[in-house]
Amino acid sequence: MINNEKIFLRNSAPERSKRIVEAVFRCKWSLTVYQLLAEKINRPGEMVRSVEGLTTKVLNECLRKNIEFGIIKRIEYNEVPPKVEYVVTPFGEKFINILDKLVELESEIVV
Amino acid sequence: MINNEKIFLRNSAPERSKRIVEAVFRCKWSLTVYQLLAEKINRPGEMVRSVEGLTTKVLNECLRKNIEFGIIKRIEYNEVPPKVEYVVTPFGEKFINILDKLVELESEIVV
Repeated sequence: MINNEKIFLRNSAPERSKRIVEAVFRCKWSLTVYQLLAEKINRPGEMVRSVEGLTTKVLNECLRKNIEFGIIKRIEYNEVPPKVEYVVTPFGEKFINILDKLVELESEIVV
Repeated sequence: MINNEKIFLRNSAPERSKRIVEAVFRCKWSLTVYQLLAEKINRPGEMVRSVEGLTTKVLNECLRKNIEFGIIKRIEYNEVPPKVEYVVTPFGEKFINILDKLVELESEIVV
């Protein structure tokens, strides 16, 4: 460095990625919900019946958060009785893919 | 579901990945340090001189944390005067790669 010209500005963690990762990691059921949807178990009743300890109330709260983040989408069918399904959005696919890579690293993390 | 046999157990966020992501995202300087190392600016003095607002004390704390997580390694050269360099570990490369993908998603995150 001939002169003391600063060539970098601070590059802080992007706010939205930070918020979404922390929220999903703090939510005890998100990874389980993603696993269910990957197995095409995407109707609320069946989702609750498939998992030990999952209640409708907890599932709805987890789904609401993931819909808010744009990871999951709710599809309503105009039928009698009304039918509802949940699907992962294209953005959600990318995000979950990144989470999976993080989970794969788990065994290599020393701390 | 013919019977009400639960086929899934809760799949909660892996503790270590959660801890490392939250720590790195909370550290204001980690992403900047990774950027410097990617530019081969890996000696403490030059790192501090290259970035607006970075002090030796803050840099050392950030490096210490990243060494603790196994993301960065410190190399000491047996010379006079003593020479020190910091490099990203193989694990660190994988982890930073995942962070970069998260940063890329930033613009798509709606919340």
